[in-house]
Amino acid sequence: MRIGILGTGNVGRALAAGWSAAGHDVLLGSRQPKDRSDLGFAVAGLGEAAGHAEVVVNATPGAASLHLLEAIGASALAGKTFIDVGVGLSDDFTELSHPNSSLSEQIQRAFPETSVVKTLCTMDSSVMTQPDALDGPHTVFLSGNSAEAKQTTAQLLSDLGWSPASQLDIGDITTARGQEHFALLFMGIAGGVNTHTFNIHVVERKR
Amino acid sequence: MRIGILGTGNVGRALAAGWSAAGHDVLLGSRQPKDRSDLGFAVAGLGEAAGHAEVVVNATPGAASLHLLEAIGASALAGKTFIDVGVGLSDDFTELSHPNSSLSEQIQRAFPETSVVKTLCTMDSSVMTQPDALDGPHTVFLSGNSAEAKQTTAQLLSDLGWSPASQLDIGDITTARGQEHFALLFMGIAGGVNTHTFNIHVVERKR
Repeated sequence: MRIGILGTGNVGRALAAGWSAAGHDVLLGSRQPKDRSDLGFAVAGLGEAAGHAEVVVNATPGAASLHLLEAIGASALAGKTFIDVGVGLSDDFTELSHPNSSLSEQIQRAFPETSVVKTLCTMDSSVMTQPDALDGPHTVFLSGNSAEAKQTTAQLLSDLGWSPASQLDIGDITTARGQEHFALLFMGIAGGVNTHTFNIHVVERKR
Repeated sequence: MRIGILGTGNVGRALAAGWSAAGHDVLLGSRQPKDRSDLGFAVAGLGEAAGHAEVVVNATPGAASLHLLEAIGASALAGKTFIDVGVGLSDDFTELSHPNSSLSEQIQRAFPETSVVKTLCTMDSSVMTQPDALDGPHTVFLSGNSAEAKQTTAQLLSDLGWSPASQLDIGDITTARGQEHFALLFMGIAGGVNTHTFNIHVVERKR
């Protein structure tokens, strides 16, 4: 599958490595592609990376994502699965950029012909592509309006090592709000366990 | 220990049952104590329940809590451990009453002589007092500025069945923000697993 990953930070590079290793055709998109030629991945401009792809992944800083996507334009994103991993946070990680809303909801509203799926934003990039490194089962969430786009996303999560049992569909794109709002508890837990390399597992009643 | 629980909803009643069973002296506080005489617990007015107690527990609706506490007044709460379980949510559970802030931070600011501890607000009342009913280990969080108040709270959590290993201190009262913001992901997960009887477990790296 042709995957365009917008953003060359820790998240974009980790996902590029994971999906390249699974055999996908990955193109990273950067605002300054010439300055990113040493990453070991193909890097193009944001618009080129989006236009190239069947699946577009947003790994740009969440507070800037909407502005960057508007510059790319709706036509390069129309009809595509758009996996949004972004969360908008203040520089000190104590405030959300989209409180009582979510970046994903706002992207879906701005690009109605694109199928937005929120996932992977509740964990560190080190966990996204190495779920087996943790000590026991844990959970990745999916939110989105399109069943087909969520199925495509589920397959791409499987390609990173996420078993079907570890993937939890929590509903339409409005539930992305919960995934993004978790960022503040993520920071608290990270302080409590003194590492960012953890995840949460949903534990149900004994059967 | 003399515990005053403000609020007679599901949370207040569940905690009253749990701590009564553990041998504590529990007094529930209600805005309409005469209408709550059939609960099977001692019920007084909010101010009386707070004044009676060594430890005060807030289980009133989070959007109304600050107003109710101001009516009780600072002197009834001064010098006490105040366990805040409240989360302010809109009637449809999609918006926080204290976005990019938290009820606990605002209570701590309004009552500086009271030691506020946030805990238990990340789960359903059915889980608060029966942690063993879930299928595997899971986590309860503590946030607060006072180490002594957190120690008192930790003991009271143990009395409900929470092992020391299940309790995670995530920092000062500003980290209550994360616990409260989790409410939106809680609602999403509840939709995904089709029950409110679940909790999350923090899973770290293999050792």
